[in-house]
Amino acid sequence: MHLGLFIHGPGHHIAAWRDPSVNPLANISFADHVATARTAEAAGFDMLFTADSNATFGPDEPAIWALTGAAARLEPLTLLAALAAVTTHIGLVCTATTTYAQPFRVARQFASLDLISLGRAGWNVVTSSAEAEALNFSHASHAPHAQRYERAEEFVGLVKQLWHSYEPGSPAPNQTTGQFHDPATLHLANHHGAHFTVRGPLSTPRSPQGQPVIVAAGQSGPGRTLAARHADVVFTVQQDINVARDLRADMRARAAAEGRDPDSIRIMPGLLPVIADTEPAARARLQTMQELIHPEIGVKTLSDIVNLDLSRYDLDGPLPDLPPSNTQQGRQQIVLQMARAEHLTIRQLYQRVVGARGHRILCGTPESIAEDMIAWVETGAADGFNIMPLTFPQGLEDFCNRVIPLLQARGHFRRGYAGHTLRAHLGIAR
Amino acid sequence: MHLGLFIHGPGHHIAAWRDPSVNPLANISFADHVATARTAEAAGFDMLFTADSNATFGPDEPAIWALTGAAARLEPLTLLAALAAVTTHIGLVCTATTTYAQPFRVARQFASLDLISLGRAGWNVVTSSAEAEALNFSHASHAPHAQRYERAEEFVGLVKQLWHSYEPGSPAPNQTTGQFHDPATLHLANHHGAHFTVRGPLSTPRSPQGQPVIVAAGQSGPGRTLAARHADVVFTVQQDINVARDLRADMRARAAAEGRDPDSIRIMPGLLPVIADTEPAARARLQTMQELIHPEIGVKTLSDIVNLDLSRYDLDGPLPDLPPSNTQQGRQQIVLQMARAEHLTIRQLYQRVVGARGHRILCGTPESIAEDMIAWVETGAADGFNIMPLTFPQGLEDFCNRVIPLLQARGHFRRGYAGHTLRAHLGIAR
Repeated sequence: MHLGLFIHGPGHHIAAWRDPSVNPLANISFADHVATARTAEAAGFDMLFTADSNATFGPDEPAIWALTGAAARLEPLTLLAALAAVTTHIGLVCTATTTYAQPFRVARQFASLDLISLGRAGWNVVTSSAEAEALNFSHASHAPHAQRYERAEEFVGLVKQLWHSYEPGSPAPNQTTGQFHDPATLHLANHHGAHFTVRGPLSTPRSPQGQPVIVAAGQSGPGRTLAARHADVVFTVQQDINVARDLRADMRARAAAEGRDPDSIRIMPGLLPVIADTEPAARARLQTMQELIHPEIGVKTLSDIVNLDLSRYDLDGPLPDLPPSNTQQGRQQIVLQMARAEHLTIRQLYQRVVGARGHRILCGTPESIAEDMIAWVETGAADGFNIMPLTFPQGLEDFCNRVIPLLQARGHFRRGYAGHTLRAHLGIAR
Repeated sequence: MHLGLFIHGPGHHIAAWRDPSVNPLANISFADHVATARTAEAAGFDMLFTADSNATFGPDEPAIWALTGAAARLEPLTLLAALAAVTTHIGLVCTATTTYAQPFRVARQFASLDLISLGRAGWNVVTSSAEAEALNFSHASHAPHAQRYERAEEFVGLVKQLWHSYEPGSPAPNQTTGQFHDPATLHLANHHGAHFTVRGPLSTPRSPQGQPVIVAAGQSGPGRTLAARHADVVFTVQQDINVARDLRADMRARAAAEGRDPDSIRIMPGLLPVIADTEPAARARLQTMQELIHPEIGVKTLSDIVNLDLSRYDLDGPLPDLPPSNTQQGRQQIVLQMARAEHLTIRQLYQRVVGARGHRILCGTPESIAEDMIAWVETGAADGFNIMPLTFPQGLEDFCNRVIPLLQARGHFRRGYAGHTLRAHLGIAR
């Protein structure tokens, strides 16, 4: 079983910063991030994972920003580079958008992170989902979903090409002759595409990993296509073991259709465990947190996910019909199905969905959580999980101290690292 | 006296990587960079400084790339973020171009570096001088010099505005009420300029430093204007104490004309010290290095500086007349003056200029070098220096062990840090 730790300031629940046990400014405290990284590395996690956004809320809600800690965070590549220096084994996976960045700089920064960390870097490829990001990059509005994925496809292919500017083993400087590298081992990209024209080469040789790990989401159709073609790891949003099993089978089949070994791709759903001595105690812990969600935050965040302003509707009435989404098609459908299947009110839905941003919340004892995770892996619904602690540090420590030993005892998780690179941890050497 | 350490792989001489004492791959070795940073911090340097280039040589010289270590380097922001985690006091100044980057991302990354380092970040503002960079960012050619500075001016003003998105002391989260910050303390940029349209706000609060330090070069006219308006530190290329004194007086006058206190700006020329027990021994050490410069590298690098292909001219003849430069106007003029004043051949000129990329080389004993530096500072030619060791680690260790104690003994350099931020070291609190 493979485990990522999704790092996220005070915790993954949207109201986590209000919990008395947390530092509400943990997201901008490097000392807190170092403590989190060291706890995760001591527990043997495959990788740290950070999401990103180049905007907070939309243009017209300054009062809503003021009710959320989302408006205070570190730029993730800067953060992970700093964490590389104080860790030795754990993988470092960082989100960078293909929508408002340049492939040459993204290729350089991740190749540099891979060299600095001696082979532990991963790039989580996304297209920007928040329309507000456009406004920070001199665009009047977002490009359509299909066009963003077309740009992403070209972007990723180009970054991979740039990462291979140097052949393996080059440069091999000869101080006597003055030959730094064999010119035949350094290649231009000479890329001329619909979105980018880039000559190259990149000035970063390869790390021990060969190439940074590529991570992608796999919800929407275009997202799955991109992931099947390029991703080593697919982070997914999954509530149901059967749906998850179908998605994993679909992703493996798509990878095979691209000429890849399906065993070279790792499908890892997000999971927010709420751990207590009994299952009712875990549910009570979660409910305490749900009630800390400010209704304005709940309605606004749910509105963004479903692509409809819900503030005009009765919070204790049903979810209305939804217009098509240009931003997060996959997530919109999952939320809609959940609302219809369980006849949830808008308030019940936002408490369910907004807390973990659509990811699966699992309340239980250490034993029941470990059993559930093992069942998902043994029945082909997952290769592992991206763990999203309810709060930091307590939620992470509970998982490391109480759940991981059970996974280890049943032979499902490593006791210490066997290799030094992220690819080694994932078992997908290039 | 203020001291920066210009970090640069195997050393600042272009042939440094061929010296038997150095690791020719030091530029991509994080362990070497950590050792350098720790040596500099133990010696009390104000800051580490890294240059940058988004390209190596031009489009048509793969054989020349192969004779230089310039084609293997780490992306500097990634490097400095990692070094932030293993240092505690020294400033971290990193180059980022305004020509091929976006202000929102640059503002975020430097603000994040400033938070991670608890107030030690600096941004060295440049316009891209290498035409080859255009080819890596989907541009067919470079914009003209004046237009690049116009973009730079708008870029810097916008970054500073974004850095002030949060007012001092905000956010101040209240876990009980659910108010993360007072909405009146977080400001949109709402910038609509000729080059950029950016709404903001930035999601990074202020560090203990208030605002990252801004560094700029001050050679060309537009460069001086930008520096006078925005820079806390000006890194210059100066060969002559009288010219340096005039430039410093000019920069201070320009700063005053912008309504600034002239004592709030630090002028720091680059200096490459070659240290030995006697001055002849230092000159011999330098000459050994000069002879390691491959003639193809020498001619090509000098050609780029003077904006004329010199490969068609006799290496042992004089420098021909030069066409106007679109890339490095200030440096072209300095080199031309040197060639004319001393009647240098092309070969003599490239050995003089290429080795330290135009910066001043000072051969001497620890005593003569310390005296020279003190004379520059005492007569108003400099506020300090950006030190460019001939080789790493030996050149740096010689400077730290033999020159700095003399500066300290004469009361010209700190013994240990009094403050914790780069602004505190520089004595220019906001």
